[in-house]
Amino acid sequence: MIEVAIMGHGVVGSGVAEILLEHWDAIAQKAKNEINVKYILDLKDFSHLYYSDKFIKDFNIILRDPEIRVVVEVMGGINPAYEFVKACLHSGKSVVTSNKELVAAKGAELLQIANEKNVNFLFEASVGGGIPVLRPIAQCLAANELSEIVGILNGTTNFILTKMIKEKVSFEDALKQAQDLGYAEKDPTADVEGHDACRKICILASLGFGKHVYPEQVQTEGITKIDLFDAAYAEKLGYVIKLIGHAKKMDNGKITANVYPALINKDNMLSGVNDVFNAVMVYGDAIGQVMFYGRGAGKSPTASAVVADVIDCVKHLVARKYLSWADGDKNYVCDGKKALSKLFVRLNAKNVSETKNAVCAVFGEDTVIIEGVKENELAFLTEYDIEEVLTKKISKFDDKIAKVLHVLD
Amino acid sequence: MIEVAIMGHGVVGSGVAEILLEHWDAIAQKAKNEINVKYILDLKDFSHLYYSDKFIKDFNIILRDPEIRVVVEVMGGINPAYEFVKACLHSGKSVVTSNKELVAAKGAELLQIANEKNVNFLFEASVGGGIPVLRPIAQCLAANELSEIVGILNGTTNFILTKMIKEKVSFEDALKQAQDLGYAEKDPTADVEGHDACRKICILASLGFGKHVYPEQVQTEGITKIDLFDAAYAEKLGYVIKLIGHAKKMDNGKITANVYPALINKDNMLSGVNDVFNAVMVYGDAIGQVMFYGRGAGKSPTASAVVADVIDCVKHLVARKYLSWADGDKNYVCDGKKALSKLFVRLNAKNVSETKNAVCAVFGEDTVIIEGVKENELAFLTEYDIEEVLTKKISKFDDKIAKVLHVLD
Repeated sequence: MIEVAIMGHGVVGSGVAEILLEHWDAIAQKAKNEINVKYILDLKDFSHLYYSDKFIKDFNIILRDPEIRVVVEVMGGINPAYEFVKACLHSGKSVVTSNKELVAAKGAELLQIANEKNVNFLFEASVGGGIPVLRPIAQCLAANELSEIVGILNGTTNFILTKMIKEKVSFEDALKQAQDLGYAEKDPTADVEGHDACRKICILASLGFGKHVYPEQVQTEGITKIDLFDAAYAEKLGYVIKLIGHAKKMDNGKITANVYPALINKDNMLSGVNDVFNAVMVYGDAIGQVMFYGRGAGKSPTASAVVADVIDCVKHLVARKYLSWADGDKNYVCDGKKALSKLFVRLNAKNVSETKNAVCAVFGEDTVIIEGVKENELAFLTEYDIEEVLTKKISKFDDKIAKVLHVLD
Repeated sequence: MIEVAIMGHGVVGSGVAEILLEHWDAIAQKAKNEINVKYILDLKDFSHLYYSDKFIKDFNIILRDPEIRVVVEVMGGINPAYEFVKACLHSGKSVVTSNKELVAAKGAELLQIANEKNVNFLFEASVGGGIPVLRPIAQCLAANELSEIVGILNGTTNFILTKMIKEKVSFEDALKQAQDLGYAEKDPTADVEGHDACRKICILASLGFGKHVYPEQVQTEGITKIDLFDAAYAEKLGYVIKLIGHAKKMDNGKITANVYPALINKDNMLSGVNDVFNAVMVYGDAIGQVMFYGRGAGKSPTASAVVADVIDCVKHLVARKYLSWADGDKNYVCDGKKALSKLFVRLNAKNVSETKNAVCAVFGEDTVIIEGVKENELAFLTEYDIEEVLTKKISKFDDKIAKVLHVLD
């Protein structure tokens, strides 16, 4: 019998408790060991629950109990989760978390402590909810050198963009619907400004390329400036707009890491990822491209991913698992402007045909130009080039620029 | 240092040898142990290779060498692979294989021997080439009860169907192109008749539902009867035609398992899987749907998956991995006719409007009917119902039936 503790009894935490308590026999079979929830740490009152006797309010009870071998951290936020997790690992307990903020900020450090103490620190649920992503990247792609990771990492913004694209609903109305359905928080900043996607691409890039990428190193742009005209232009061009996290290895060993709304070619599998679904596309030298797709959030998928990690911890109490990456450094993440990009540009054009000629003069006669979506405006796609080269060319239309977005073919 | 042997030096085997020999340092880092290829078993002459000194022609050298801890079987076929793998497992060596025919026919038995001998028997590369599928199903979904597995499991037929759909190329011409490109064998039977997909759905269903499904239990239908009219009808209905392997759990604990060409709704992610790509969609109670997508074949992806399994074996020489399922039995797989289905039906119709009325009389006024694709013909979609109920209704048009295909929404 293995004793575990759960820290946090919110949406995910209660899901984890329910699965572990209600499916204990099936889980015991899979873990080859019975798993008992000894404590649940939460300050709120849960006296109405049938497992109310498990609740405690003092973290030290968990820390000091040598019977506890695995601790589930599902509190969210950096503090006090960081201190708690660190203390647990130091005292030789394995930790499972779904806390992307924590892993994105402190992953390298916590993995290192886990390594020193020969315990596990697992966080599959921190990216893509219940979709198996981190484990396949770490383990199944062991024979691959990864070159690029691109994902639709936030279900809320994907829901909003899908509504805008498919039902021509404005951003504001789509956000309202997302809030009504419980997909978006009252304060939707973390989702719509891209912070949530930023944390996830940090974790993916850290694992995939072997060195920690910190959230402040990722240029992050949300979807608040996307309007229905963008969606209409994209449709006409054979693209759809998605918020993506994008990390690429450069020839010099450094990487670029960005979060931005991008026009995605309809031939790209990511373009078909709709509603609250998430997907992560990984490019490796041997494997080519591989994509993982599923529900990126929600109580049940996320809790099931946490429980799978707990089972894995129990099966590997003595042998540490594979996850690890090195500390990051200041110069590791380059400015995306030094990388190859393709851009979508909307220009104000009182005289459309004159502006069209000007665009062709700068970007070539074959430039794909779309007009007629909005009055006194046209839009075009550039070819691939170093982004700052493109930006310089675009700057020739300085006061005409209505919008510039990235493009992914 | 861990000594390994490779049995078979064809496309995949040579890929495995090259990766292990040329990336030995990176692999040693990942496996936390150096991996040395001691023998390669192949009867052909490879004296021109720089590693020609490793070749042997007698299997017993491998079997009797106690230094060999991991054996890679990439010969293909049941014999002598089955005898060789069995002997290796019995003598306490772990085995990694990409041989889907072997695993589909003998998986339960070989896993049981591996279990008794506390060694690993891994075969990630047998399904989906380099796409991580089996491992995530087994491990990451440990907290899920699976209800359905559906996949595009054969790259050759998917390439042919994609050509037919996108370029209106006939089946025969598309097959010829696939052969010219090396995607299809001279004798394409195993691909186009669905045998390859059948083996893969056997492995997926065995693992996902916990009990062996044998190839002869799977109703298997290939794509040879698919024509450009089917593709055109599908397009008009908002579907595309794909060859799928499909396994479902029934309420009575039994399963259905089929391979057939099906019309797939364009809203279903599987519809976007084109060319030689494969994808597997898995439905679990906690996770909802999860999809794994990538190149399903090819030397480099398949070899990289084999090498990842070898690395995993080396990391788990003492602790067995998770894979296992029970023996199958005769009555475990039900006739698909007892399950819910939706069908696409093409009827010869000298008098189209009369036939239309007849269809509506049997299937309801709201039946989706398409005409104008082929002269003197119409097609319609049924609603979901028990398949034999649908078949009985369709039989009312007995001598008019031009084709019946399954539909997946």
